[in-house]
Amino acid sequence: MMGKDVLVGNRLERVDADTKLTGRCRFLADLRFDGLLHARQARSTQIHARLVALDCERARHLPGIRAVVSAVDVPGENRIGVIIDDQPLFAADRVRYLGEPLAIVAADTEAAATAAVAVIEESARFEPLPALLSIEDSRNAAPDAIHASGPVASSHIAVRGDIEQGFAEADIVVEAEFGTGAQEHYYLEPQGCVVVPEGDGGVTVYGSMQCPFYVQKAVARVIGTTYGKVRVIQTPTGGAFGGKEDIPNELCARTALLALATDRPVRLLLERREDITSTSKRHPFRTGGRLGATGDGRLTAMAITHDADSGAYATLSPPVIFRAAIQGVGPYDIPTSRVEARGWYTNNVPSGAFRGFGSPQATFVHERLIDLMASKLKMDPVELRRINMVREGGRIATGQVLTESVGALETLERCAAAAESTTDDRRPTPADIALKPELGDDPARWMVATGFSSMIYGNCLGQAGWHMDGAGASLQIHADGSVTCSTGLTEMGQGSQTVITQMVAEALGVDPATVKLPPIDTALVPDSGPTVASRNVVMSGKAILNGAKQLLDRLRPLAAEMMAAPEDVLIFSGGEVRRPDRDGSALPFAELAEMAWRRNINLAAEGWWHVPELNFDPQTGVGDAYFAYSFATQAARVAVDGLTGQSHVLKVWAAHDVGRAVNPAGVEGQVEGGVVQGAGWALGERLVRSGGRVLSDNLSTYELPRSIDAPEIETIIVESPHSLGPYGAKSLGEPVIIPIAAAIANGVSLAIADAVNGIPINSEHTLLHLER
Amino acid sequence: MMGKDVLVGNRLERVDADTKLTGRCRFLADLRFDGLLHARQARSTQIHARLVALDCERARHLPGIRAVVSAVDVPGENRIGVIIDDQPLFAADRVRYLGEPLAIVAADTEAAATAAVAVIEESARFEPLPALLSIEDSRNAAPDAIHASGPVASSHIAVRGDIEQGFAEADIVVEAEFGTGAQEHYYLEPQGCVVVPEGDGGVTVYGSMQCPFYVQKAVARVIGTTYGKVRVIQTPTGGAFGGKEDIPNELCARTALLALATDRPVRLLLERREDITSTSKRHPFRTGGRLGATGDGRLTAMAITHDADSGAYATLSPPVIFRAAIQGVGPYDIPTSRVEARGWYTNNVPSGAFRGFGSPQATFVHERLIDLMASKLKMDPVELRRINMVREGGRIATGQVLTESVGALETLERCAAAAESTTDDRRPTPADIALKPELGDDPARWMVATGFSSMIYGNCLGQAGWHMDGAGASLQIHADGSVTCSTGLTEMGQGSQTVITQMVAEALGVDPATVKLPPIDTALVPDSGPTVASRNVVMSGKAILNGAKQLLDRLRPLAAEMMAAPEDVLIFSGGEVRRPDRDGSALPFAELAEMAWRRNINLAAEGWWHVPELNFDPQTGVGDAYFAYSFATQAARVAVDGLTGQSHVLKVWAAHDVGRAVNPAGVEGQVEGGVVQGAGWALGERLVRSGGRVLSDNLSTYELPRSIDAPEIETIIVESPHSLGPYGAKSLGEPVIIPIAAAIANGVSLAIADAVNGIPINSEHTLLHLER
Repeated sequence: MMGKDVLVGNRLERVDADTKLTGRCRFLADLRFDGLLHARQARSTQIHARLVALDCERARHLPGIRAVVSAVDVPGENRIGVIIDDQPLFAADRVRYLGEPLAIVAADTEAAATAAVAVIEESARFEPLPALLSIEDSRNAAPDAIHASGPVASSHIAVRGDIEQGFAEADIVVEAEFGTGAQEHYYLEPQGCVVVPEGDGGVTVYGSMQCPFYVQKAVARVIGTTYGKVRVIQTPTGGAFGGKEDIPNELCARTALLALATDRPVRLLLERREDITSTSKRHPFRTGGRLGATGDGRLTAMAITHDADSGAYATLSPPVIFRAAIQGVGPYDIPTSRVEARGWYTNNVPSGAFRGFGSPQATFVHERLIDLMASKLKMDPVELRRINMVREGGRIATGQVLTESVGALETLERCAAAAESTTDDRRPTPADIALKPELGDDPARWMVATGFSSMIYGNCLGQAGWHMDGAGASLQIHADGSVTCSTGLTEMGQGSQTVITQMVAEALGVDPATVKLPPIDTALVPDSGPTVASRNVVMSGKAILNGAKQLLDRLRPLAAEMMAAPEDVLIFSGGEVRRPDRDGSALPFAELAEMAWRRNINLAAEGWWHVPELNFDPQTGVGDAYFAYSFATQAARVAVDGLTGQSHVLKVWAAHDVGRAVNPAGVEGQVEGGVVQGAGWALGERLVRSGGRVLSDNLSTYELPRSIDAPEIETIIVESPHSLGPYGAKSLGEPVIIPIAAAIANGVSLAIADAVNGIPINSEHTLLHLER
Repeated sequence: MMGKDVLVGNRLERVDADTKLTGRCRFLADLRFDGLLHARQARSTQIHARLVALDCERARHLPGIRAVVSAVDVPGENRIGVIIDDQPLFAADRVRYLGEPLAIVAADTEAAATAAVAVIEESARFEPLPALLSIEDSRNAAPDAIHASGPVASSHIAVRGDIEQGFAEADIVVEAEFGTGAQEHYYLEPQGCVVVPEGDGGVTVYGSMQCPFYVQKAVARVIGTTYGKVRVIQTPTGGAFGGKEDIPNELCARTALLALATDRPVRLLLERREDITSTSKRHPFRTGGRLGATGDGRLTAMAITHDADSGAYATLSPPVIFRAAIQGVGPYDIPTSRVEARGWYTNNVPSGAFRGFGSPQATFVHERLIDLMASKLKMDPVELRRINMVREGGRIATGQVLTESVGALETLERCAAAAESTTDDRRPTPADIALKPELGDDPARWMVATGFSSMIYGNCLGQAGWHMDGAGASLQIHADGSVTCSTGLTEMGQGSQTVITQMVAEALGVDPATVKLPPIDTALVPDSGPTVASRNVVMSGKAILNGAKQLLDRLRPLAAEMMAAPEDVLIFSGGEVRRPDRDGSALPFAELAEMAWRRNINLAAEGWWHVPELNFDPQTGVGDAYFAYSFATQAARVAVDGLTGQSHVLKVWAAHDVGRAVNPAGVEGQVEGGVVQGAGWALGERLVRSGGRVLSDNLSTYELPRSIDAPEIETIIVESPHSLGPYGAKSLGEPVIIPIAAAIANGVSLAIADAVNGIPINSEHTLLHLER
């Protein structure tokens, strides 16, 4: 029996480590189904065009073809928009991006399906329309060039105070243009699903995904049945990073049509090239920013205008744009500010969700502005941040007063205290050389500096009104005292199962080894919303606490009876019930559970939690948009090679206010993954497009960071507990990626003594601009 | 949108009809698993012997063999007893019946497994012990001949009043010996399971079964893990009738050992012959009965001693013996009675659960005694029953006072009013000839009479203390208003899914077409006990009502707000919320659900119900043993062929007090199935054993009733609602089979004017004893 040392706050080993390390974990492609058919999608060969003819009939008669489904064959609605209803499941009379699906084929073999797809694609007749491949193109075209609703897919504002007055009070104003690029998720496991017809007009969907409840609704709408008849079971998911939020909806819906048409299980697996070229990406941003400050470093006004490339359909632009606006000035208490964010329709592949949801782009801007201002003020960038960082009782960009759990300043102070400082000569220090011995060979070749970056992150969905923001946890105590807990939010590699296990064990006072988490399954738990916005630990944790309370309320009177003790002294912990008022008196939880079972006590409970009501007004951009905020400061020690212009990240110090670290090892894992993924976006990952086509469609052209590119990373955990978080915990999964690109750009800017306002950072540009 | 006409009390079409009639329902043998291995069991070739040697090693090295597991390889406990811990999973040093499992083999093919089984069986070395193949053998042997605990596997008594005084007050006493035979369940789908290892020491079990929670515990105990790590999913089950209550525990546990040993999915499917010869049967009974009455037909005392053949292990003898005792005097208010029931260990294949659990055997006895007494009193058997039938406020065999829902007399009166009477000349009436035209060809050849039989049936598990008697229902309302309901009690063909659907729809006021019931799965619902004792409708129904109440309590305030109505006038019905105080004002349930979802209202609930506490004392045989009782009277119109002695059932009138008929078509279906199954036991099904071996191991030797043997059946529904039943409903699944054998025997006895006190009824005996 394990005690306190493995519960909340401790480093429980990942509960999924064993099956994943031994290769026994069965991913989607490992599953067998009787009579399985293979699906492939036929796609538009045009960027933007009217679709005037499509012939699926010939393909239907090819050998091995079992079904072909296109827009005319959809029994429900041919619609798949996640938030805005602007997207068809299959193009019907218009294509808006290269590769937009026209039809889907089920065949006995992949090869037969591929052959049929070619026939369908060749049959398509188009009348080309102008291809709008940038925000500028879209801005300059007729308003209804892509969608009748206009060129803007989504827009949001965050407003505080009178910004004209704020700038009037400034002694110094800096102004700049910024650009950040698209990013491919490159999850290890490509997208895929298997759909099994259930014979009652419904289906069971198995898939690699983030959001089973989104898939449930999307499939039901397309096949024309009730939500209850669509059961979605998440298979172990090999990475997602936001990329499996919107795309599984459409893949599963199309595959479901085939399953019903053929009355057989059908599998759709995307190949890597198809996955990269056809699925959603991080929104590229173009931003104008302006920052005013007094001579002693008090910020007075910040004005930001973000323009994002949403691509051909809105999909998840609304929450991306929302976060870019709400979090647009960062964790600073600036008396006046105005952030405007817009997503523009173009004829690119739709942009979607990517870890951070617009926050890394927004943070890049406000953190570069801070460093630009510090440079102008000739002030230490840390000091400028320190002066303006929001404190408890302070306000943020929407005027919201932060009343608790404001660890922003502590992240800054602890990060600054830990990080290597920028030296006056910007030359490698002994510590730098220890990290990268090459720097010692010719120190004069290298310019080294430390860039800082701070961020604010609104926890969970926020007050934007698109979706409910609640989550459930179904708890069962078995007669032997073991526990099953089903939640609706998913594990996709981030380690949530381990943290959930710890929270269940802590809440009920049981041994974590006795806690079982079944695969996520819409039949097991109520709609818990999407696994996005770093909701899992916070939402599931609170639902678990709610469920555990119901159970303990039923068990406590029985335990008191069995122990002849007053109820209120009993402590449930470590697999037993103890009464601390009498040393050594303990009742094994298993015995209590068995007695409860014999007494017909209900040992199951539906835990539930939802975020508190908020008052943000999207029209005015004022109010409380999130119930809680996470904070972080990261510092990046960068070395720029004077010979090549290439930037290297030597070390990152990452201080995160997580409220409470349920599993410090999990926090470190998240930080390390997020920092490396963000560094990749900042330095190496360039999504190359030409004429609407993604050219960098594999690892030889799309440069993911490799293990040798990963810097040393030091995680600094700041715990400023939130009263509404489970055990005080706040969101972490997205915050870890948010500050790093700005920290690197700030470091490179300091190192080369020139402003780097765009990413990915271009070595040629650096080489040309560096000041030796 | 459907209205009231498809809900409780109406004939909703079976929800599983479509998939079962079209062959799309996927039974266990239809499921595919990656790398599936095939299992076969090695069995004892001795009836009773010491097992002195067993060599599994040779078999392990045969081609295609992946694992062999025997008693020495069990990581947990080598025990499988359901209630009494008297049974090993694998015989270790002793075998107690022919065919007792010694080992199990997993192989690439069935053929390889079969070959290995032969090698193992040949390797076994035995020292024979005396084979005790009857109750008499067991009674006459040393007390510890089979088990150290003694020759009696289980015994129970039911006692009321001073029976000596009761017999002293009798004017007439009848006394007789009775015998009833074993019965094979002959479910259409043989036993089988697939066990998948989960990589965490746990398993997922798929199987054709009645009691997933029994299987969960049995498997966990054998493999040595927690209950939570054993997930059991019931596959569509092609009949069970009690035969899939105990056996799946052992089959799944043995197969689980192979799954863990090989780290691959393993399937065990019994062939029909193996299934008949090795699985549990209905207990054969030998009974002595004595009944006293006054000259005017008031029963004064009944004394019954049941001796049952439990076979080599107790398995489900305790509840079988319990029911035989508690219900031993039938639905009569007899001032004094004593029933003693015992199950004896023998070296036969263990007897187990079979629809009725000892009740058909017990009813055969008390109903024959009543008819014997009527004959002696020269009183109409219906009149004798009428005089003594228990009424509201009356008492039954344990002294329990029945305070409500006592429809016994009404079943008798309505059955008697409907049934064709026995004529003085016992010759076919025109109605008989209409049913079987052959009777008209030579009426003198036939003797025709109507036998009656009444029964009492305690609902659910009763106060015997073995198991908890509660059940859960997990309800989810989806954002579109559709509903998912998971219960823990199983469909095995009886039609429960349809009735559950009706009750969910009625309870929430929704369209039954929007209600989805996922497959039964231990991860979906709390332990709801076994699906036996006709518990499903009563227990699941109450749990559903409990869950629905929780949900409606959350929805009602919102509906009132949306409709600007007071909460208490709102009626949830037919897919909408109506306010009858204003005609025409209705809110679609789907709209309410969506608004509730948007408002973050928890739309899931864990319903729960358990039986009330009872006070039966097993030591004294006095008290309240069940919280509610079902009643029935059946009449069988039988024609005995004077030429062959063969008995034919022309028609059956079956009047059942079901409390409330949730689905009258389902009641009729149950009655028709139960009557035919009981008639088979009474007339044709003879389980032939020789030297411990079952010889009648297929349909050519074990004579199931065929369609041409089925009588015309008229179902008479009596509704005497019970305040604790859902919508007043009481148990039905077992009652339908309980009275019929006695009714047939009473009819044949009247027809031939001689007592038929044993079943199956032997045509030769009838021919020899008939009085023309």
